[in-house]
Order: sequence, then structure tokens, then C-alpha cells
Amino acid sequence: MANFGGHAIPGSFFLFYGFWLTVKCTLQHMWRTSQPKGRHNMPPFFTKMEYFEGGLQIFASFVGIMVEQFVVDGPHAHLYNRESHSWVKLMNWQHATMYLFFGFCGVALIASARSKTLPAGLDRLAISLALFVEGFLFHYHVHSRPPLDAHIHTLLLVPVFAGSACFMLEAFLRDNVILELLGACLFVLQGSWFYQIGFVLYPLSGPEWELDQHDNLMFVTMCFCWHLAVDLLLVTCTAATVCYAVKRFSASGQDIEIGMRNAPSKSNSQRALLEESDEE
Amino acid sequence: MANFGGHAIPGSFFLFYGFWLTVKCTLQHMWRTSQPKGRHNMPPFFTKMEYFEGGLQIFASFVGIMVEQFVVDGPHAHLYNRESHSWVKLMNWQHATMYLFFGFCGVALIASARSKTLPAGLDRLAISLALFVEGFLFHYHVHSRPPLDAHIHTLLLVPVFAGSACFMLEAFLRDNVILELLGACLFVLQGSWFYQIGFVLYPLSGPEWELDQHDNLMFVTMCFCWHLAVDLLLVTCTAATVCYAVKRFSASGQDIEIGMRNAPSKSNSQRALLEESDEE
Amino acid sequence: MANFGGHAIPGSFFLFYGFWLTVKCTLQHMWRTSQPKGRHNMPPFFTKMEYFEGGLQIFASFVGIMVEQFVVDGPHAHLYNRESHSWVKLMNWQHATMYLFFGFCGVALIASARSKTLPAGLDRLAISLALFVEGFLFHYHVHSRPPLDAHIHTLLLVPVFAGSACFMLEAFLRDNVILELLGACLFVLQGSWFYQIGFVLYPLSGPEWELDQHDNLMFVTMCFCWHLAVDLLLVTCTAATVCYAVKRFSASGQDIEIGMRNAPSKSNSQRALLEESDEE
Amino acid sequence: MANFGGHAIPGSFFLFYGFWLTVKCTLQHMWRTSQPKGRHNMPPFFTKMEYFEGGLQIFASFVGIMVEQFVVDGPHAHLYNRESHSWVKLMNWQHATMYLFFGFCGVALIASARSKTLPAGLDRLAISLALFVEGFLFHYHVHSRPPLDAHIHTLLLVPVFAGSACFMLEAFLRDNVILELLGACLFVLQGSWFYQIGFVLYPLSGPEWELDQHDNLMFVTMCFCWHLAVDLLLVTCTAATVCYAVKRFSASGQDIEIGMRNAPSKSNSQRALLEESDEE
Repeated sequence: MANFGGHAIPGSFFLFYGFWLTVKCTLQHMWRTSQPKGRHNMPPFFTKMEYFEGGLQIFASFVGIMVEQFVVDGPHAHLYNRESHSWVKLMNWQHATMYLFFGFCGVALIASARSKTLPAGLDRLAISLALFVEGFLFHYHVHSRPPLDAHIHTLLLVPVFAGSACFMLEAFLRDNVILELLGACLFVLQGSWFYQIGFVLYPLSGPEWELDQHDNLMFVTMCFCWHLAVDLLLVTCTAATVCYAVKRFSASGQDIEIGMRNAPSKSNSQRALLEESDEE
Repeated sequence: MANFGGHAIPGSFFLFYGFWLTVKCTLQHMWRTSQPKGRHNMPPFFTKMEYFEGGLQIFASFVGIMVEQFVVDGPHAHLYNRESHSWVKLMNWQHATMYLFFGFCGVALIASARSKTLPAGLDRLAISLALFVEGFLFHYHVHSRPPLDAHIHTLLLVPVFAGSACFMLEAFLRDNVILELLGACLFVLQGSWFYQIGFVLYPLSGPEWELDQHDNLMFVTMCFCWHLAVDLLLVTCTAATVCYAVKRFSASGQDIEIGMRNAPSKSNSQRALLEESDEE
Repeated sequence: MANFGGHAIPGSFFLFYGFWLTVKCTLQHMWRTSQPKGRHNMPPFFTKMEYFEGGLQIFASFVGIMVEQFVVDGPHAHLYNRESHSWVKLMNWQHATMYLFFGFCGVALIASARSKTLPAGLDRLAISLALFVEGFLFHYHVHSRPPLDAHIHTLLLVPVFAGSACFMLEAFLRDNVILELLGACLFVLQGSWFYQIGFVLYPLSGPEWELDQHDNLMFVTMCFCWHLAVDLLLVTCTAATVCYAVKRFSASGQDIEIGMRNAPSKSNSQRALLEESDEE
Repeated sequence: MANFGGHAIPGSFFLFYGFWLTVKCTLQHMWRTSQPKGRHNMPPFFTKMEYFEGGLQIFASFVGIMVEQFVVDGPHAHLYNRESHSWVKLMNWQHATMYLFFGFCGVALIASARSKTLPAGLDRLAISLALFVEGFLFHYHVHSRPPLDAHIHTLLLVPVFAGSACFMLEAFLRDNVILELLGACLFVLQGSWFYQIGFVLYPLSGPEWELDQHDNLMFVTMCFCWHLAVDLLLVTCTAATVCYAVKRFSASGQDIEIGMRNAPSKSNSQRALLEESDEE
């Protein structure tokens, strides 16, 4: 995976997943705040979203593991070479291990959405563990590399471990929209930083970066903060757009708050509310 | 204890204890969720489990201390040799100190189960302290060893300190099944990793591992993640099996939820519910 | 900014902001405790304070960025010099990045004060992120400097990261006056320590400090504790003065508690209570 | 203070304070659990205890500062020697700084006990800050000392920083007896460890310890765990004795629980309950 594509693919995945989480938690927050107190059942629309998300995670991690194992220069499911007494392509095995834990997330998410007897927060714990394992493996990944390469990968650990802590907290402090948006933003930051790593280490055009120059390290540190700033703006804009769209569509049919209170017993009207955009 | 057995014995103990905690907290969680709100008294069955657990901890730690002291090459309760002006077998004394704190856990557990005036959470605090002491002593244990030996013992500190934090949190955030299962899983991980240390440092067959090779360190780091994955699966399967078994046995007699609500005043029926498996 | 003024300007800003926060959270705490339970709407006076604070933050950070960019020896919005293949004035760019995040705080604060649909705690999260970015950039700022210079800047990280943690906690544990005063005190400490850095590195009079002497490091460490002690006293005195002033002015008109309970429906009387000082 | 007495005096202070806290929080816990719900006013007996504790802290820290300044080889309130261009006795100044913050605790405690408008938890925050400052100064205290000396002082930081975290938590999680006893135990541990440092570095009799021998470091690490074990036992016994004594004395007069419920309006009877031991 030591090329631009090898960083762009996980980067795209994390970017997409971050924005998906932003949309999902904004919708859920709007639903919760529009509901009268004491009612907490989510409409089937959200359960479908979770099935889709979980299925995608399982599919993506399965494809990821297969690709890491069976690319041309991959390990082809061999772990130890008895003849040369050496391990086979440990880098690919490590990446496959990371994907495996994201696959577990998908399973935990589908199981939580399906069964009501499962304890709440299991899906968040699974994401937290997946991020922890990713950061844990990356931490031992960066030994004995040139300074800029090591530094740029170390910066990646900031959103990874912060995200792990954030989702771990979500497992206990549920339905806190601030925390959920922060978690989503950390995924977006991770995704955009993967792209940045690709641009720096494998530039598509122009000269190569000098990996030992101290000024480059200082610029990259600052650049990380710019990514954070831009990603905060993007997540905020996405959440605001979702809010605006939901309010407009629900207003054209029925006011979101009054509609809720007039017809608290009609379960269909609530479901319709969120699917109106399709019906119009 | 520098042989395979010296790692397999504590490993077996922690594996067994992790699964025991899994079964216990699954049963307690099912009991809590099946109870109508406001009623929190545990049936005597759970108190008996706690007595058994505490007794076992005290017995195991007593045996452990005796073995560490009075094996053939042990210190035989001598701490300082005045003639050679040196400490006697500090390694054995350190292991005995670790066992002592696990013995304290047993005392705290029995005292909590016996007396209702003791503040809740005392038993969790005791486990947290025992794990902290274990990690604290191990941390200063690994100085000046070859890289692979030091690394594989450092990885052991991850479940130890994470477990300590987890049980410390449980002392304040009680009856959270997610946290309890995470704590149980960390014990299982510690147990299985003790076995792994034994296999790596004292291989039963085949060639010895080269303790300086960087690839071995990378493999061991990844292997730790695989242990985590397998242990998560094992704990999940155990909890699911317990759930399934309890539901089947209680369904053959009486539905667990309806049974509770029909006869909330008969304290015997509740106790019977959990002991039905023996009666059938 | 490598002169006394370059440390005195941010120092003054943080000192002022710390005292502003002290006054604001003391007033809000007095309001909350004087209100009958269940009523939580803040009077318009507080919203005006938040608009003023947010506007000032945006204005100050805009001025800061402009100054950093367009001073005589600044980068003038050039980032990379293609001729010498080097980055242009990264130090100024880093300072501008820090200011940018404090500008975001202002935007978040005004948005939170304006809109009620925004989740509570967004403004605290923004301050926490701004402090984190400041500490993060400073952390990589101090490489390869003489010992005293590095040490005195490292000590600055204590109030910065502690403040970041404190405001992050406030985003979840709202309306806790202890936490708010601690956060304000950490801003004051940061401000006074900026002055101390200026005095030590660019003394206005007298001999220069020897940057390698170990005794100087020890003194500076102790001096940091004295700053903390003095700042704690100043914040305490400020809060006490605000309490005393509000109580006196409200007593001369109407008793604060009885007044509240007699006229809970008149919204004007509540507003008047806090603005009485202007009217007298 | 580089002698046995210089470690025994603060050690005795911390030991005494730890046991005092144990007795205080046990009595308060018994009072809280014996009260019917909804009533939270403490009897005047506890307020008197807090006055005494605060007064003692202020007195002890004042004496400590005076002794550090005006002993024969002290700085006599001189900070900088202009002739030799060097700082005067920074060690004594650092100790005086530590005492100053413990003096602040006393002020905060008396103020909290006196005024009901002060926010709850201020006294705990003050202790937390005092411990943080102590640990912060000690952390920079131990540079360039022989290994055993540095290690034994580093171990002291464990109860200091753990205590700081514990009391910080108490400021937000009030009236949790587990946390209060843990904080008391960490003070006892700090006190007994001060004695241990004195015994190791300035042995009263017998040969000196070799400060470079690795076995001595290992023994001292283990010895720290034994201190923890013994201190846990001592704190537990003290709390149990207090419980037993209060129950016996209140039983000889009137049952603690029934007495409370029969006469909830007579404020004198409640106060009498805790002072009966003196009257008998």
C-alpha cells in the first residue's frame, strides 16, 4: 500500500463514514428533540440506516482483507515462510487485522439494531475498540522511518486515539449530539489526513518533499490544524444543511413540532415525516 | 517461574476468572432487566456466587504465596541475606505481593456480600487496586531484558492497566453491563496473553524465537490484536450461551417476565427461577 | 513576535479574558441560585454579554491574523517561496492559525447565544479546541531552544492543556460554577505567565538571564506556583467583589431572593435587577 | 531538611491528616445513611470539626513556612543574592511554597464551613490544587540524583498525583464514601512513605543503602506495595472502629435509625446523638 492510492482508499472511506455519521446523528438529534418527553422509540427509518451502515462496514472490511491478502505482492494467506525463516508481508497482515475490527463494528451495529435485549452502547464500544486497535498497530508501525514520514503518521494517531476515547465515552453518555458530532469530525479529519499523507509522501506532481528538513515538520504540524479547521467547517455545514432540509420538507407537509403533538398516537405519520422527501 | 508452567498457571487462573465474571455479570444483567423497576434486592443465589468467588480468590492467593515462598529455589520467607548483603529472590517476593492483593479482593468481596452497611463498589475498588499493583510491579519488572521479552511483557500491561481503569470506573458507575463485560474480557485477554508469553519465551517444541529481530516484535504486536479479537468472540459467545440457557430453562417452567410480574411477592419463586436447571 | 511586546499583547488578552469569564460566571451562578427551581431562561442581559464577548473574540483574532501577516517582516500572505524552495515565516503562520481558532470560538459563542436549536455546550467545545490547537502548536514550537527557554514555554502548556480539559468537561457538565471559575483562573494564569516569559527572555532592564543555569530552571518552576497562588487570589477577590456588588445594588432596590419569588411572572423586573446599577 | 527529621515531620503530618479524614468521612457517611431522605443539613458537630481542621492546616502551614525561612541555614526571606548573582536556598523556598498551598486549603475549608453561598466542592478543589503543586514541585526536584534517591522520590509522586485526581473528582462527585476513603488512604500512604524515604536515605542505625544497586530499586518498588497494603488495612480498621464505636454509644442511648425517625424535628437530639460519648 506504499503508494498514493493506498492512502486515498482508506482516506475516502473515513471521509465518507465521517459525513455519514454527521448526517445520521443530526437526523437522530432532530428526531429526539422533536419528540415529546418519555417517548424514545426510533422510527424504522433509522433502523434501516443502521442495517445499511453495518452491512457496508462488513462488506468494506471483507473486501479490504481480501485485497490485502491476494494482491499481486500480497501474502496470499501465508503467515510464516519456513524456508527463509521469516514472516511473510507483515504490513499486509497488519492492515487486514485493522479491517477485521472494523468488520466487527458492522456486526455489532446490526446486532444492536436487530435485538432490543442487547445492552445499549455495544456498537459504540466496537467502534472505539476498532479505532484503538488501528492506533495501537500504527503506533508500532512508524519505527525507524525518516523524520517527516514518522511525524506525519504520528499526527494521524491524534484523531485515531481521540476518536477512540470519544466513542468509548459515547458508550456511557448516550444521545449527546456534541459528542457524536465530535466523533464524526474526528473520522473526517482522519480521512482528510490520509489524503494529506498521500500527497506528501507520494506527490502526484512536482518535486519530492525533503523528509529530514525541520521546516517541513513545522509546516505539516500547522497543516494538521488547518485540516481540523476545514473539517470542522465541513461537518458544521453538513449538519446545518441536513437541519435546513428536514425543516423545509417537514414544513411543506406539516410543522415538525406541532405535527408531533397533534398526532402522537399515529405511528405512521411520524415515519412519513422523515420519508416525505422521497414521496414528494 | 521462568518456565512455561510459570506463565500457564496464572494464565489459566485469569482465563477462568474472566469467563466466571462473564457468566456472573450476564446473569445479574438478566436479573436486573427482568425485575420491575424499584426492586433491587438480589436473590440469595448471587450472594452464594460471591461467597464462592471470594473464597476461591483467598484460597488461590494463599496457595500462590505459599508456592512462591516454599518452592525448592524459593526464598523460604527470608527477605535479606545478611551474609552476602543482598536481597533473597526478589522476583518470588514480588509475585507473592501481587497474590496478596488478589487475596484482599476476596476479603472485600465476601465482606460486601455479607454486610449491607459497607459502601457499594468496595469490591470493584479492591480488584482495581490489585490490577494496579500487578501492573505497577510488572512495569519495573521488564528493565534490561532483550527487546522481544520486554515488548511482550509491556503488551501485558495494556489489559492490566485498562482492566484497573475499567474496574475503578465500575466502582462509581455501577450495574453497567457493557463495562462489566469489558472488564471480564480484559481478564480473559490477560489470561490468553500469559499463555502466549509462555509459548514465545519457552517454546514447547520447535526452534527458539530470536529475541532481537524486529519482525518478531511486529508479529507479536499484531498477535496481541488477534488475541483481543478471539477473546471478544469467546466472551460474546459465553454471554449469549448463558442468555439462551437461562431463557430456555425459565421458559420451560414459566416466562421470565410474566412470571416476575404475576408473583412479585413470592420471594421463593424468584429464587427458584434461577435454580430450576438443577431441579429439572 | 520575539520581543517583550509580542508576549505582553497575548498576555493582556488572556488576563482580560480570564477576568471577564470570572465576572460572567459569577453573575450567571448568582442568577441560577436566586431563581426558583425549574426556571432556566437567562435574562437578555446575559445574551448581550455573550454577543459582546463573541464579537470581541472575532475582532481580536481578525486583528491578530492581519498583524501577523502584514507586519514589516511578516509573510504578507505568502506561504512558500518557490525561488529559495523554503517556507515563508512559519512562526507567523502558526500564530495566525492559533488566532483563527479563537475566532471560531467567537462565531460559536454568538451562534449559541442567537439560536436555541443549537446543542448546548458548543461554545465550550470551541474554546476547548482552540486551547488544544494552541497547546499542540506550542508543543512543537519549543524544539532545539536553550533549556530555560524550552522549560518556560513548556510550563505554559500546563494552563493551556488543563484549560482545554476543563472546558471540554464543561461541555458535558454544564452550569458547574467550580469548573467555570477553574477555567477562568487557568486563562488568568496563562496571561500572567505570558508576561513572565516576556520578563525572563526579554528583560526590560538589568542583566540577561543565563539560559543554561539549573537554578534558574528551579526558580522558574517555583515562580509558576506563585503565579498560580496570586491568580487564584485575584480570581477569588474578583468573584467576591462581584457577589458583594450585586447583593448591595439589588438590596438597595429589592431583596434578590424575595424579589424573585414575589414577581416570578414579571419578566421585566428580573432584567431590571441586574441592570439597576446603570439606572441608579 | 536533608535529614531523617525533615522527612518524619511532614510524614507525621500526612499520617495524622489521613486518619483524621478517615474518621471524618466515616462519621459523615454514617450520618448521611442514618438520615431520612431529603434532609441534608449537617449537625453543628461537623462544622466544628471543619473549623478545627482548617485552623490546624493554616497554623501548620504558617509554622512550616516560618521554619523553612528562619532555621539557622535557611534563606531568612532573601530570594536573590545580588553579590554572588545566585538564588538563595531554593529548596527551602520550594518547601515554603508547598506549605502555602496547604494553608490555602485551610482558608477554603473554613470559608466553605462558614458560608452557605460558597459553591460546594471548593475545599476539595483546594486540596487537589495543593497536592498538584506538591507533586509538580517534587517532579522537578529529583533531577540529577543517584538512582535510588530519584526512584524513591518518584514513587512518592504516585500517592500525590493520585490524591490530587481523587480530590478533584470529589469536587464534582460529592458524598461518595469510597472516593473519600481512597483519598484518606492516599494521604496515609504519602505519610508512611515519607517515613520510608527517611529510613532509606538517612538510616538511623546500620549501614547506608547503596544508591546505585538495582536490587535496592526493586525492593523499594515492592516495599511501596506493602505500604499500600498496610495502609489500606489501617484505614479499614480505623473506619470499622469508628462505625462500631458510634453504633455502640448510640445504641446505649437510643437506636440510631429509630431515634432519627421518631424525632426528626428536634434538632438537639440529633446533635446529642454524636456527642453522647462525651456526656456519658
